[in-house]
Amino acid sequence: MQRHFHEELDALKQTLLAMGGLVEEQIRRVMIALLERDGDLAREVIERDTQVNAYDVEIDETCVELLALYQPTAGDLRFITTAMKIVTDLERIGDQAVNIAQRALELNQEPQLKPYIDLPRMAEKAQRMVKESLDAYVGRDTALARRVCSEDAEVDALKEQIFRELLTFMMEDARTIPRAIRLILISRFLERVADHATNIAEMVVYMVESKMVRHTLAR
Amino acid sequence: MQRHFHEELDALKQTLLAMGGLVEEQIRRVMIALLERDGDLAREVIERDTQVNAYDVEIDETCVELLALYQPTAGDLRFITTAMKIVTDLERIGDQAVNIAQRALELNQEPQLKPYIDLPRMAEKAQRMVKESLDAYVGRDTALARRVCSEDAEVDALKEQIFRELLTFMMEDARTIPRAIRLILISRFLERVADHATNIAEMVVYMVESKMVRHTLAR
Repeated sequence: MQRHFHEELDALKQTLLAMGGLVEEQIRRVMIALLERDGDLAREVIERDTQVNAYDVEIDETCVELLALYQPTAGDLRFITTAMKIVTDLERIGDQAVNIAQRALELNQEPQLKPYIDLPRMAEKAQRMVKESLDAYVGRDTALARRVCSEDAEVDALKEQIFRELLTFMMEDARTIPRAIRLILISRFLERVADHATNIAEMVVYMVESKMVRHTLAR
Repeated sequence: MQRHFHEELDALKQTLLAMGGLVEEQIRRVMIALLERDGDLAREVIERDTQVNAYDVEIDETCVELLALYQPTAGDLRFITTAMKIVTDLERIGDQAVNIAQRALELNQEPQLKPYIDLPRMAEKAQRMVKESLDAYVGRDTALARRVCSEDAEVDALKEQIFRELLTFMMEDARTIPRAIRLILISRFLERVADHATNIAEMVVYMVESKMVRHTLAR
């Protein structure tokens, strides 16, 4: 029974990493869709969100089954309840990819406002945070988790920079306003991706150290 | 032991409702702070978020303890794992109140752009959705939960209306842009409150009917 349990726990980890890989891929692809003004790719990202949602339901089911069948305690119990919370964050990262895809499709209706430089940098950072937060979870690695939390400030700084730059565009030429606002929204969606990764990382520290790290780590 | 378990389950429900009451109150108060340009009240809302976070940790701990001590199965197991997910949504609704408070403080630096009419309506709807979603949870009431899901469209419609109106302001007078953007952001924060309530409602339907309702309900 115990061997079986640990095999199933390993399978859970693998599925969770696969879901993480998929949402990272969704962010990567939607940024290509935005940068290359590729409407087909943006629509693909939107369609593929059903796969993300399917993972959410699957992992949730697996966790409830593991709890019911093996009634784990202590560390394993917390590992599973943390997985149930992490999938929710991953699913919502997937939603942000869809939000960006929708704005990208709208942006394609007009000429490009400016070359995008900070948005892809922001996306790369956010994507890396997602990957690291999941690595921290499966490896129960609090040092890595804390690094993710500290990276959030860089993403916020980029968001502020993008906002200030686009504000200048809007103030100088009112015709740029609708496009600028869409780009500001995209930066906010990417910020939320980073926030979800930070949430995951905080849960990992909490899971491992079982003390009140959440809500006390400097953001 | 079983009687004890059900008493503790009842206590969990009460604590969750208390947390829900607190975040509703946070939304209510931050909207007064915005409408009455009351900086002190906005700062109070920001400070009070620590209470919301304390509930998050407390309920999470209680749930893990209940799972470890009583090893519940079937409906009770799912009720507890759902509680663990719901607190995360409630905590993030609390974060939206803080986000609004910060924008309200910034808006106080300049004269008011326009009388706010749709924002308070949006806030009221979102607040009601939060209350109803939690009532649906404790009452395992799927009809009410489905109603919450259907209300989300009204909030989205108000958000679009606010966006279009503020776009007109910005196009006509560039000096209104920073204020208009802050108001647009506030409408997005309220939209996220409604989204969290919808997430809770979807989880309730899923918990009760244990079939794939999440991600299939019309948004």
